[in-house]
Amino acid sequence: MEASRKMAWHWHFLGFFFLSLHVFSAKAKASQCSIKGLPLVRNISELPQDDHGIRGLSHITVAGSVLHGMKEVEVWLQTFSPGSCTPIHRHSCEEVFIVLKGSGTLYLASSSHQKHPGKPQEYFIFPNSTFHIPVNDAHQVWNINEHEDLQVLVIISRPPVKMFIYDDWFMPHTAAKLRFPIFWDEQCLQVQAPPKDEL
Amino acid sequence: MEASRKMAWHWHFLGFFFLSLHVFSAKAKASQCSIKGLPLVRNISELPQDDHGIRGLSHITVAGSVLHGMKEVEVWLQTFSPGSCTPIHRHSCEEVFIVLKGSGTLYLASSSHQKHPGKPQEYFIFPNSTFHIPVNDAHQVWNINEHEDLQVLVIISRPPVKMFIYDDWFMPHTAAKLRFPIFWDEQCLQVQAPPKDEL
Repeated sequence: MEASRKMAWHWHFLGFFFLSLHVFSAKAKASQCSIKGLPLVRNISELPQDDHGIRGLSHITVAGSVLHGMKEVEVWLQTFSPGSCTPIHRHSCEEVFIVLKGSGTLYLASSSHQKHPGKPQEYFIFPNSTFHIPVNDAHQVWNINEHEDLQVLVIISRPPVKMFIYDDWFMPHTAAKLRFPIFWDEQCLQVQAPPKDEL
Repeated sequence: MEASRKMAWHWHFLGFFFLSLHVFSAKAKASQCSIKGLPLVRNISELPQDDHGIRGLSHITVAGSVLHGMKEVEVWLQTFSPGSCTPIHRHSCEEVFIVLKGSGTLYLASSSHQKHPGKPQEYFIFPNSTFHIPVNDAHQVWNINEHEDLQVLVIISRPPVKMFIYDDWFMPHTAAKLRFPIFWDEQCLQVQAPPKDEL
């Protein structure tokens, strides 16, 4: 009981998952770009979930700038299938990871002062581990496990995030491609964009 | 596999917990007020854990301003034993909750414009649910389950947090007691305070 109280992060999840399957798609559509109709307390398994065109990704915005009106923090639940990864990227915000399931490798280039990220350091990430990415440091997360998904909870500051993507670790910072809105904010930021000036 | 990939938040935790028990106290002391010696990727089960004098609470700062140098976001893992609760309080930051385990009640008074919080609304919170507290809205979280712990992951902006505590929902905002540093930042903020001016 004591050990359990201290750190047993058990998720009575499967029940909720199957219970919510029948309403998932409807809810997903209903709350795609608005919190209208969303209760204050939300079942995460009923939130919109998509790969947003990224192979091996499953993304859920748990609390977001675009969907829920957050101004200072944003929380994502992301699952990477075996062999999948994030792009090499950086962003001008703080980012905290919590590894819920699986294992992988964090590549981190702490050399933002140079003209390019440079050769990154490698870190093993594992279940129940946490780490944070310094503002503007280029990084990449890989699921190197051939058999198990890598599931992470991601917390960022200053939403909505602007992501700068690199083809490789030696691409100059000035050549990195800006991705804004980010993949999962695209549809809704377009929807919420103000009408063009007709003059 | 697909269901698992989508939302199975299983924590291969117990193994890590028992493996880390023998180093827990040493690590806890070593990293009490400094990130010196802490690896970039940290095992959450090895982080300092304390009730900070609050009955029924088990608090872990997963990523913090004081301990880890975060400037924009802070993450806590908190466990409330049956019947325990937070004080009625507010803070000038965004706050996101993710319920990992157990159930309880959120009391939220969305009336910061009045002279006191006033009668709060009640919301049932459950495993795998999430909610956020609007900036400066008075709130309280209770573990109403007599048999199970309530475990939540808490994300706040603008760390270190300044908490204003109310004796009841009708205490004037102006009478709320400021708690800064907050319970779990006390020791380290004192340690890190600059020396007094001797002149």
